[in-house]
Parts: sequence; structure tokens; C-alpha cells
Amino acid sequence: MPSLRDEIFEQPACLRALIHNQKETAQRIAEVIHQREVHYAFLAARGSSDNAGRYANYLWGAHNRLPLALATPSLFTYYKSPPALKGALVLGVSQSGKSPDIVSVLDEGRNQGCLTLAITNAPQSPLAERADLVFDIQAGLEKAVAATKTYTAQLMAIAMISAALAGIESRWEELENVPAWVDQVLRQDETIARMVQRYRYMHLCVVLGRGFNYATAFEWALKLKELTYIVAEPYSSADFQHGPIAMVEGGFPVLAVTPSGMVFETMLSMLIDLRHNHAAELVVISDNDQALELAQSPLRLPAGIPEWLTPLVSIVPAQLFACHLTLAKGYDTDQPRGLNKVTRTR
Amino acid sequence: MPSLRDEIFEQPACLRALIHNQKETAQRIAEVIHQREVHYAFLAARGSSDNAGRYANYLWGAHNRLPLALATPSLFTYYKSPPALKGALVLGVSQSGKSPDIVSVLDEGRNQGCLTLAITNAPQSPLAERADLVFDIQAGLEKAVAATKTYTAQLMAIAMISAALAGIESRWEELENVPAWVDQVLRQDETIARMVQRYRYMHLCVVLGRGFNYATAFEWALKLKELTYIVAEPYSSADFQHGPIAMVEGGFPVLAVTPSGMVFETMLSMLIDLRHNHAAELVVISDNDQALELAQSPLRLPAGIPEWLTPLVSIVPAQLFACHLTLAKGYDTDQPRGLNKVTRTR
Repeated sequence: MPSLRDEIFEQPACLRALIHNQKETAQRIAEVIHQREVHYAFLAARGSSDNAGRYANYLWGAHNRLPLALATPSLFTYYKSPPALKGALVLGVSQSGKSPDIVSVLDEGRNQGCLTLAITNAPQSPLAERADLVFDIQAGLEKAVAATKTYTAQLMAIAMISAALAGIESRWEELENVPAWVDQVLRQDETIARMVQRYRYMHLCVVLGRGFNYATAFEWALKLKELTYIVAEPYSSADFQHGPIAMVEGGFPVLAVTPSGMVFETMLSMLIDLRHNHAAELVVISDNDQALELAQSPLRLPAGIPEWLTPLVSIVPAQLFACHLTLAKGYDTDQPRGLNKVTRTR
Repeated sequence: MPSLRDEIFEQPACLRALIHNQKETAQRIAEVIHQREVHYAFLAARGSSDNAGRYANYLWGAHNRLPLALATPSLFTYYKSPPALKGALVLGVSQSGKSPDIVSVLDEGRNQGCLTLAITNAPQSPLAERADLVFDIQAGLEKAVAATKTYTAQLMAIAMISAALAGIESRWEELENVPAWVDQVLRQDETIARMVQRYRYMHLCVVLGRGFNYATAFEWALKLKELTYIVAEPYSSADFQHGPIAMVEGGFPVLAVTPSGMVFETMLSMLIDLRHNHAAELVVISDNDQALELAQSPLRLPAGIPEWLTPLVSIVPAQLFACHLTLAKGYDTDQPRGLNKVTRTR
């Protein structure tokens, strides 16, 4: 049994344990943040961890009023001209905790006297050593090179810190439902394995999401690029409408993450336009019948997920889609070519 | 004569006038910023203006120590949950000054008592009306739907504000050379018109840049998507190396922006890898012989441009490339399908 599929299926257990084991850690982190004068978060991450950061950008903005700036690591490494970080919570997100460029951002934050936080699967790593506060995502060893369970665990860490910062107890009750929703989605495994056959010869596609699920669009696209070598370009639906939609011709595949929520209506009207005016091929992740009926390939989400938690569930059918498409194309799910587990970029 | 090509050629004159006419404006803006307790810039923009914001992210970080957060406009519009913007300079960049979502970010910044700045080609626009400070880029009417002269004028505005904030007179002398460098690049017009024939049937490509020219990679990709309907995906070379490089097979086109500077060596070693180990097709914008010799299609930059100003010059051969490729593919350069000049996204 390949590790990638195993690790996708480990997610409900990982998430359940994480909520249970790390609630106090989240609350302690929130307390320290409240004590300091933090004006914004300054986040350094790469790859899937950067996509987790995109989730933090929306969630912490919407629920905690905390703006988030994405660090430009090359300013710290190649240019040696880091910005002044007064008022920043300096945050590093990294599965391995070993990427030199992410570590160098935390180092600089520490030198400038900022509060520093690491979200990592490696609490003994260089990144964790630099941080005042460490959130260990406790996902266990991830063998497959493409991140799955560490991605959802990072999202969960971000959601738990958000719930703790807000101090709203009902948010924790909502969080506790996530593992069961993920379980429900995993039951579509065989359906998805059949569905992907249709995309055996797909070489390029776009992936659309907005708001909280902007992160999901990026992560779905990244899994496809890493595992299936498809050119998969992620977009905010707003940016897509503003120009790139022009490239959609008949049969062009558009993958969309559109659960119910505040941005649903605008996403739906774009899907209607794409299907009826552009004759696009649609793969749609949603809980909404109207959106699913527009799709040649519908991927159904459980009903009733609060919008802020949809990214933790909606990425799971996307992971299965990428995993099965990798197999359909005859590639290796565990050791994709050209990838290393630890990113050594400076 | 189509407007797009005209407007590309108007750039030296626009930039020359802008440096001359708006130096005092830049200095006044810098003075006001210095008087206020600004910890970071919070930027709202879409499309080409967002790419100009990517330049500000690197330049203001490196030369002015000012971190920059990219706004998530949907938090302001659909979610009605804007973050707390204490300590932020709230900046809107928009050619038309009319995009409702960008205007709503400025509105919120103003309501929260932040200093607000608009960089726009329309000093009477709703965006400019909301702003405490307005930098009019004075590029004249842009008829072509795809932005060219307003993009370089926005970069110039960002560079002028940076020079004024730093208060370093030699930076102004460097700035004054930009129009002549752009003139030099424009002389390659016919060469580029011949070169693009090779890409008549290119349907997808990636565009790489890093550091200051991360913005250039995004803008080149956007021009190709808007005008030629090619799937052109922009990447930081660091993110590209971390995964997506796996999709590069023999003949896969990689467009790269690699002028001399702090990130040149890392970009060069990636180009060597792409050419020799992946048999990639390379289109390279550079002043460096070694980088240009690796390319099937070299686009030469003038020698001696200070790295911080390379984005103002390196985008110009990319604009010509996109313009001529549009003609080679038989499309309309002035009225691309699916695009409006004013973005009405919320």
C-alpha cells in the first residue's frame, strides 16, 4: 500500500488527536499573543505550508482581525535587507522545520525582538529552536513526498489558534466535527478512482477558489503539479474573471472549490458562465446541488460545515483526486520525480 | 496602428515626464509617511496593479525596511470582516481608480484612521477621492485593454516614493536613466517580431523570476494570458524548484527574467539545470551572456542597470514579446476577448 493514500486516510485520526492534545497549547499561544502588542502576522513558508498560510490570511483576518503579510524570504537570504518587523508576530510554517530560508526569517524576527511562532511537525527542528512559541502538529512521520496529513494538520493548528484567540467556545465545538466530515468525504474514494479516468490525458487545467478556499485551490493545484505533472494554475475567481477567463475554450478543464458561504453566489455565477458560455469541463467540490449539477465531475461535501472550516474538508476530495489521477497516469505517488521532502531553498 | 504597440512605445516619454513632474509629489508623500507611525503597508490591487504591488513588496522591504501585506479584498466586501489596520499605510493601486473592491479597502482604512495612499492614472476617481495622499501616474489615456504604460508608470511611482523615503539623492540619478534604457530595449522590436514566430503554437509555458523581478514574471505571464490565451504560469524560481519543476519535459517552454543582481546565480544554476537536464525551451531576458547563451530565444537588456530598477526595463521586451505573439497568433491586441478595461470585481 503506498504511503500517500495511507496518509490521506490517516487524517481523521490525526485531526481528532490534535484537537484533543493541543487545545492547551493553542490557548497558551493565544494568551501570549494577547499580552504583546501584535499589529499583524508576518508569515514565512513554502509550498503546502504557504497554502496553509493563505488560510491563516483569511481566517485570522476575518475572525481575529489580524492582518497577515507573506514574507519574501529572499530579502532575508540573498538581499540581506530584511524589513523592520516592529509590531509583527513572526510566524514560520514548515513540516520539516528545516528550510534554511524559513529559519532565517524567524532568526531575524527574534533578533528584532518580535514574538516568534513555529507551526511544525518537527518540534526538535532548527525552526522550532528559534521560536518563542511552538505548535507541534503531531501528524507523525509523513513518508510520501507530497504533503497531505501535515497540510490538514497545519490548517487545524491555524484554526485552533484562531478559536483560542477569539475565546469563543462554540468554535471549539465546530472544530470537533471536522474529523467526522473528513471521514465522510473519504468514503468517496472508489467513486473518485473511477472519475479520474476521464482526466488520464489532461495536461493542463485551472483551479479556482475564493475567500477561505483560495488556499484550497492553491493546494489542489500544487498536488496536481507535484504528483501528476499537469500544468495546474490556481486563481482567485476574482482575478480569473479579470483577464485569464479569456483562455477558456470548449472542453478546457476548470476545477473549482465552491462550498456554501459568503463567496458562493459569485463563484456559482462564474461556473454558470464557464459551463454555458465557454463550454468548459467542470470538476466541482461543493455541498450545493446547483453547483454540483453544473459539473461533469461533481465531488460532494457533507452539508452544514461552517464556512471557516470548509478548507479542512474540501481539500480531502482534491487529495484523493490527485492521488488516483497519479495512479491512472502510471506515475509513482510516493516518490514524484524532482522533489525532496525537505526543501533546501535559500 | 494598434494602441497596444503605440502605448508600449510611449513608455520612455511617459517615464521621463513622470520623474520630472512628480518628484515633489513623491517627496511630499514620503514626508507624511515619515511623520506617521507606519509599521507596514497594506496594499489592495488587482491584475497588473497587483504585480506593481509585488515590486513594492521587495523594493520597500529592501530599501525602506517597510513590510507589505497584500490585502484580501473579499474580507472587506463579501465577508464584511476587515482586519484591524493599526500601524498600516493603506495603499490602493489602480489604473482606473474605479474597482469597487479596491475602493472599499481604502474606505475601511480611512474609517480606521489609517494613512491612505492611492497610486492611480485617474486623479478624479473614487479611489483618489478616498485617499489622503494621491500619486497621479500621468500616463495619459490607455486605450488598449492590456495595461503596459500604466504598469511601468506604477512601478516608477513606487520607485520614486522609495527614493524619496530613503532620501538618497544618488537613487534619483539612477532613476533618471530608466527612460533611456527602455528606449534601448524598444530597438529590439523587429528582432522580437521575428523571434515570436517560433511560439505560434505554444499553448502553455511557465514564467520564472525572483526577488525584484518576481513582479516581472507575474506581469509577463498576465500579458500572455490576457492577449494570447496561453496558459502561462508565473513562479518564484524557489517555489518552482520545490515541486513544479517536475513537470518540465523536453521542449517545455520556460520564460525567465534574470538580470544581474543578488539572485542571478541561483537563477542561472536553475537555467543550466532546465536546459541540460530537462531539455527545456528557454526564453531569457538578461544582460548576462552566460544566461543569454543558454536560451533558444535570448532577449538582451542593457548592461549596468542597478538591480532595483531592472523591473522597469525587463518588462519591456516581455511586453513586445506578448504583443507580437498576439499578432502572430492572429488575435486582436487592443480588444482581447473577455476583458474590460475597468475591473468591476467586488
